[in-house]
Amino acid sequence: MIKELKKITNCEFLEDKEDIYPYAYDTSVALSSVNVPFCVALPESIEDVQKIVKYAIKNNLVIIPRGAGTCHSAGCRVSKDERRAIIIHFSKMNKIIEIDEKNLTAKVQPNVVLGDLQRAIDKFNLFFPPDPSNLEVSTIGGAIALSSSGPRTFKYGQIKNYILNLKIVNGEGEVVELGKDLRKNVTGYNLCDLFIGSEGTFGIVVEATLKLIPKPACTKLILAYFKSIDEAGVCVTKILTSNVQPATLDILDDKTLITIEKFNPTGLYTRYEAALLIELDGEVESISAESKKLQTILEEAHAEKIVNTDDKKANEDIWKARRSSFACCAKLAPNVVTEDIVVSTSKIPEMIKFIRQLSQKYGIMACIMGHAGDGNIHPNFALDLENITQLRNFKELKDELFKGALKMGGTLSGEHGIGMEKRVYLEDAINPIAHSYMKQIKQVFDPHNIFNPDKAI
Amino acid sequence: MIKELKKITNCEFLEDKEDIYPYAYDTSVALSSVNVPFCVALPESIEDVQKIVKYAIKNNLVIIPRGAGTCHSAGCRVSKDERRAIIIHFSKMNKIIEIDEKNLTAKVQPNVVLGDLQRAIDKFNLFFPPDPSNLEVSTIGGAIALSSSGPRTFKYGQIKNYILNLKIVNGEGEVVELGKDLRKNVTGYNLCDLFIGSEGTFGIVVEATLKLIPKPACTKLILAYFKSIDEAGVCVTKILTSNVQPATLDILDDKTLITIEKFNPTGLYTRYEAALLIELDGEVESISAESKKLQTILEEAHAEKIVNTDDKKANEDIWKARRSSFACCAKLAPNVVTEDIVVSTSKIPEMIKFIRQLSQKYGIMACIMGHAGDGNIHPNFALDLENITQLRNFKELKDELFKGALKMGGTLSGEHGIGMEKRVYLEDAINPIAHSYMKQIKQVFDPHNIFNPDKAI
Repeated sequence: MIKELKKITNCEFLEDKEDIYPYAYDTSVALSSVNVPFCVALPESIEDVQKIVKYAIKNNLVIIPRGAGTCHSAGCRVSKDERRAIIIHFSKMNKIIEIDEKNLTAKVQPNVVLGDLQRAIDKFNLFFPPDPSNLEVSTIGGAIALSSSGPRTFKYGQIKNYILNLKIVNGEGEVVELGKDLRKNVTGYNLCDLFIGSEGTFGIVVEATLKLIPKPACTKLILAYFKSIDEAGVCVTKILTSNVQPATLDILDDKTLITIEKFNPTGLYTRYEAALLIELDGEVESISAESKKLQTILEEAHAEKIVNTDDKKANEDIWKARRSSFACCAKLAPNVVTEDIVVSTSKIPEMIKFIRQLSQKYGIMACIMGHAGDGNIHPNFALDLENITQLRNFKELKDELFKGALKMGGTLSGEHGIGMEKRVYLEDAINPIAHSYMKQIKQVFDPHNIFNPDKAI
Repeated sequence: MIKELKKITNCEFLEDKEDIYPYAYDTSVALSSVNVPFCVALPESIEDVQKIVKYAIKNNLVIIPRGAGTCHSAGCRVSKDERRAIIIHFSKMNKIIEIDEKNLTAKVQPNVVLGDLQRAIDKFNLFFPPDPSNLEVSTIGGAIALSSSGPRTFKYGQIKNYILNLKIVNGEGEVVELGKDLRKNVTGYNLCDLFIGSEGTFGIVVEATLKLIPKPACTKLILAYFKSIDEAGVCVTKILTSNVQPATLDILDDKTLITIEKFNPTGLYTRYEAALLIELDGEVESISAESKKLQTILEEAHAEKIVNTDDKKANEDIWKARRSSFACCAKLAPNVVTEDIVVSTSKIPEMIKFIRQLSQKYGIMACIMGHAGDGNIHPNFALDLENITQLRNFKELKDELFKGALKMGGTLSGEHGIGMEKRVYLEDAINPIAHSYMKQIKQVFDPHNIFNPDKAI
């Protein structure tokens, strides 16, 4: 088959075991068996993507689109060991096609790395708000697939608010434009937003038109430390209901602070139970006014220590530290599993305390952080999955975690997706009729069932 | 049938000709025949909505959901004269069910009027950005159906960014929750955003959970007048690419200014070809900094006159004047038709000049305004539709207008929807495969084809 594929396309294919083996993984841990694709395609053109899809239809293969492979929910892994999966890796479709300064848009290929995009548009004083923690590796295609939005979601909204148009290859191998390169468009139904977060199960994004905004003039970072999670939680609500609207309102627990300081010393204080990482952005004058108001709120909310950073370098260091939390946690034990729960913002302390109880009950260390402003909690669990007791305990912990989140009125994912990992909880998370709609809509886009099987729904 | 419906529900029904006749209209003009529904239902409960839908399925009826009836695209009119249409008017489902101050959400019934909502949440210092021009009458259900967002879209994004969850009655008469009352949720596919803008063709919104944000501390209005449309257009691009991010960036042409001043004198200057209406919001300090920057931009862009308004009353008067543009235009001739075109922001002058040419060519007066920051142009055409020549001319004008917009890379609607009026242009506006997806998705939600036939797609 690879010979045939090579004949009909101009595409490079990986087929040797050592080359394709890494593609059996993403950053999720293999709780089940590890399956290797039969080949990895590295197309350079939309035409080749179409040809591969058409070949897959004819030969009863399945296709798994892949960006940087940083998915935490097993969203780009091969679900079955049956040697009929092609992974399409977009590493050669990584160009910024156009930056339209006048209309504040950019047209990009799927494998443009978010960090690279941000630097490229920065030159034009433009800004693309979505900033998943791993933005130095994660790609726009992956971020669209999982609706990954990051800490700045709080002020700027999710990635869907910044995707104007998508060009996709559908389940017949045809190119379909889902929207228009316009800032507003209600002509027909909203297929673009439907596609975002569909985890590669509808088709393959081959081009995206992004909405950019002017870059905020300045930013200022505030770290506020609290004696207790509860006090930090009350403070989150106070900030939410104030006139101050930070770009970012993240929470880090003591374990996270200690772990970052252990492996990536940045000068974070480690003797408090929680810290809020708050970034203000905008005009100098507005930041100055907002930070005064914020100072009062933080003091009234009993912040024990407040650190202000205007310095660009110090800001960057703190962000690097914050973004390193997953990597640092990974040094605590052979494995690290990051999770992605959403609850109402007022229930953040309850959720964090619940995770701590589970951590204690099952003897698995949890470093907890999250985008407090959105109620989106990311616990990092450090453990040894080769230890059979730990593995069994962890499975039970996860089970309690997701069921607990749903019981609190929360949900299974805010930005990491469902992948293969959380499908078992979907029945409890989604209205059954809505779920049946999802299955039918999947069929509309992908009638031959070739795209990313056993994911998302 | 009305007798039967009365027996199975607790719902009031209008059936007398004089009562139901107004429901044959919305604010679109009847370019074709006017059809009266056989009755109008005024349900007070979700259960009654379900019963009416189930009765409709059994008896091969169709249902047209209706809010304030302010649709400009014939989206809530009866499409065929066949006496099998029930209009459900939600005037009795108009309650704000809950305002959750802590989590910044509100749960509302479909007929809550946007202006009332804004006043109700204002007490809690909360803010719901979408502000269609007719917000004193238009309802949240209608705004969801048409994805109506208004001038503040520029800074705050469209209404979809502020709808967290929808409870609908589907095409089987079942209640389906499409999302969760959470600020972030990627559990399963994004059905909420798909539903928004579906013009009542998927089902009936019976409850919506809204995302609120803290109310901006202050606002400031700036009116900048320009000698020419071109200069105003260049200025729009300059503002777009500056650090200043107004809440609103509207454009009004000379005809609009003159017409407002004629019927609703507010002190607008009428001797310039275009005005930009710019509203800044945020902290006092940031407004002060931004307005300084803006002043420089406006001067460099050759604004001939710049009027600044900090005064709350003066601000409100200008907004009232701006919002009265449609009503004022309606006094110029027996009929007024407002249209809704989107182009790239850089093509606004080209579009406005094109509309003026059409207006001259066909002898139909056009007052042009629009949300310049989004490229969303609303020309108001004043004419006498009983004058057969004018009617014929107007039909040709519209035809040229929409075809011209598409030719410029624009689209048919930014917030008024397609309704019955623009369906004929859909083939040219949407990718044919995307269009076929839309038709299939309509079948998923509404398998018996009972909801709002002949609209949207």
